[in-house]
Amino acid sequence: MGTRYDTVSLLTDYGTADEFVGVIKSVLRELAPHAVTIDLTHEIPPHDVRAGSLALARCIQYVAPGVVLAVVDPGVGTDRRAVAVEVAGGAGVLLGPDNGLLAPAVQMAGGADRAVALTNTEHHLEAPGATFAGRDVFAPVAAQLCNGTDLSELGEAIDPHGMVPGLLPITRTEGDDLLAEVLWVDRFGNVQLNVDPDELPAGTTHVRLRIGEQVRTARLRPAYAAIAAGEIGLVVDSYGLLSIALDRRPAAAELGLAAGDQVVLTAHEGPEGRGAGAVPVTFRR
Amino acid sequence: MGTRYDTVSLLTDYGTADEFVGVIKSVLRELAPHAVTIDLTHEIPPHDVRAGSLALARCIQYVAPGVVLAVVDPGVGTDRRAVAVEVAGGAGVLLGPDNGLLAPAVQMAGGADRAVALTNTEHHLEAPGATFAGRDVFAPVAAQLCNGTDLSELGEAIDPHGMVPGLLPITRTEGDDLLAEVLWVDRFGNVQLNVDPDELPAGTTHVRLRIGEQVRTARLRPAYAAIAAGEIGLVVDSYGLLSIALDRRPAAAELGLAAGDQVVLTAHEGPEGRGAGAVPVTFRR
Amino acid sequence: MGTRYDTVSLLTDYGTADEFVGVIKSVLRELAPHAVTIDLTHEIPPHDVRAGSLALARCIQYVAPGVVLAVVDPGVGTDRRAVAVEVAGGAGVLLGPDNGLLAPAVQMAGGADRAVALTNTEHHLEAPGATFAGRDVFAPVAAQLCNGTDLSELGEAIDPHGMVPGLLPITRTEGDDLLAEVLWVDRFGNVQLNVDPDELPAGTTHVRLRIGEQVRTARLRPAYAAIAAGEIGLVVDSYGLLSIALDRRPAAAELGLAAGDQVVLTAHEGPEGRGAGAVPVTFRR
Repeated sequence: MGTRYDTVSLLTDYGTADEFVGVIKSVLRELAPHAVTIDLTHEIPPHDVRAGSLALARCIQYVAPGVVLAVVDPGVGTDRRAVAVEVAGGAGVLLGPDNGLLAPAVQMAGGADRAVALTNTEHHLEAPGATFAGRDVFAPVAAQLCNGTDLSELGEAIDPHGMVPGLLPITRTEGDDLLAEVLWVDRFGNVQLNVDPDELPAGTTHVRLRIGEQVRTARLRPAYAAIAAGEIGLVVDSYGLLSIALDRRPAAAELGLAAGDQVVLTAHEGPEGRGAGAVPVTFRR
Repeated sequence: MGTRYDTVSLLTDYGTADEFVGVIKSVLRELAPHAVTIDLTHEIPPHDVRAGSLALARCIQYVAPGVVLAVVDPGVGTDRRAVAVEVAGGAGVLLGPDNGLLAPAVQMAGGADRAVALTNTEHHLEAPGATFAGRDVFAPVAAQLCNGTDLSELGEAIDPHGMVPGLLPITRTEGDDLLAEVLWVDRFGNVQLNVDPDELPAGTTHVRLRIGEQVRTARLRPAYAAIAAGEIGLVVDSYGLLSIALDRRPAAAELGLAAGDQVVLTAHEGPEGRGAGAVPVTFRR
Repeated sequence: MGTRYDTVSLLTDYGTADEFVGVIKSVLRELAPHAVTIDLTHEIPPHDVRAGSLALARCIQYVAPGVVLAVVDPGVGTDRRAVAVEVAGGAGVLLGPDNGLLAPAVQMAGGADRAVALTNTEHHLEAPGATFAGRDVFAPVAAQLCNGTDLSELGEAIDPHGMVPGLLPITRTEGDDLLAEVLWVDRFGNVQLNVDPDELPAGTTHVRLRIGEQVRTARLRPAYAAIAAGEIGLVVDSYGLLSIALDRRPAAAELGLAAGDQVVLTAHEGPEGRGAGAVPVTFRR
């Protein structure tokens, strides 16, 4: 017997308009009635593995010990592998397709202790079509894990290093410029960049943003509400990354930014006339 | 005392933007604290009894034993009956308006064992207006059932055969043509038809689709991801019905299809030039 | 030790597309595993404190005993206070920003027994940025309350009367006219007014509505489905307030109404020709 889990955290691109998520929870309720489910989100854009992997990576340090069932799975029904990955000395098991969705979260959880491909079909539900692995494969396997079935009974061991890697974009410097990428636009239109505040020179107060042909100046602020009207703010967000924000208005819409877009940052000393080029800046990394 | 249930599965057209569903769960939590709720979906289009009845029918075989509380109820506050229907030897009770919403699910669960109209108002909440039966009638009655109250105490017995029937559209054949109907468009834009794959001649690989004035050729494929770029696929979906799909793109939008639309299918041997008319096809049913 | 709570009801403007709510539930699950969460709604329009306070006020009489965690918090990270307010002899505690969000619900629950500012940061989570108080302040404090921590340990006592008041718009009469305001448009397009049916003269059957330049006649009806085709109905809704409705169509869209709009009501005896001015009406209040 393996560990007995009592929480299943769910992250999918299934939405909630259809009954997909409700059916997964129904299967879990029937097979592992003691398990509590937590919806991380089901609104990952359809088929967007990158957005799903980033959301899961943002969540993972807060996720309760137990099973994570993650499905963004455009390759469902093909020979892409379905996998279970044990992390954190058995405190958690991540289930999902082997398409890069799980990889960043696994890395943030300290790496894989062991992994299996879910090839033991006796734990799966029979179904007429192979299009709903969430219901037919991942939910019953999650229930098995909650009931104490060891990972090794779920299928053949695989080398975690052979799994499809996740793609976390990293920044790049060109002279004084820091080439960054939009990771995420949240409900409030805040624009998370892949930039650690330490990548800006110590003492930076103003940053020039180049977004396509547009050049704007942003000011570092300690909170969204500290951003003045008409000003663009740069705020260290709740995950420790820089976010472009406006006060109570969606920055993404106003600046025309979406996930994946490039933003070039150049630190300068303020909008009072000294050009950015005159400021000696050194980007670390 | 009747059976004591511990799961209440919810399906409504209430949406989640308003607090309707939260209030129903609050009532349940207060009156039957041991009961766990499962959201099947709350995004049935407002007043769309047909869509609700089809979604419930798709779910029902997976729903956990217990109470199902289903509300798509344009006639709320009128003399339409509110009913409780026991199925599967008492394993489940479906609650909802008697307007056809429950009927297909009841049929799929093996038919009604017994049914009552919810005329015993002592189990209902008092309210200023009669517009929110989910909160004032169905939630407290669901809690009663979870607490072991027998169906017979909820109101007067009714003949299940006298309930408003559900309308499940069936296919029709005209010569070589199979006249089908769109049951459902899911989040991914996949178009579920009311067609069992066995209704196509054995060995069919290609099907001509007539959609209004449009004629297209679709190819049977084992999975969404097996559909080639630019190709229209026909896939046996997770409920065992044929779905029209594209690879990672919404077929419904591209073909202009919505629930209730007609699609005419004609099997043929492929796109290599032999006309569909030359292929001897026999539709069973 | 204070009361031990086992339900946390959530109301936010976080939406469910992002993982914000899932992370809050994860924190609660880890710190107070016995607590059950109930989503009242997460779809309050971003930063709309008024809409959030009205939704919470509509819910509060149905909310299960326990903790209410409410977040619509445009001032997060500034010196606006985060508070806990005990109501109903300790049956419930409301957590949220001190910006008027909680005030109407507190009033409806009978007023505040005591209140504290959440200044004891030892109960909070450490975080890189101060933008996500739901996760870093309110969720861990809610867990503490569920685990029996007394309010007094959460921070310094404050005078409940010094909290930011809520703004509930009240009606005003001008001659025969009742000047009302739209409180809420629900998913079905029903338009809730801040009008108690008793504010209309006894026996009123028809009401003239003035909406901007538009003048329409509405008829009082006992249920949505009792509204005739082409007719505008006035229905006593499930909260005891007058709602403008159409039968199975969204009144708000058809009449161009949104939350905050003014509607002027004048009772008259029907559309048969006698002018409203000829009818002696007395508005109470």
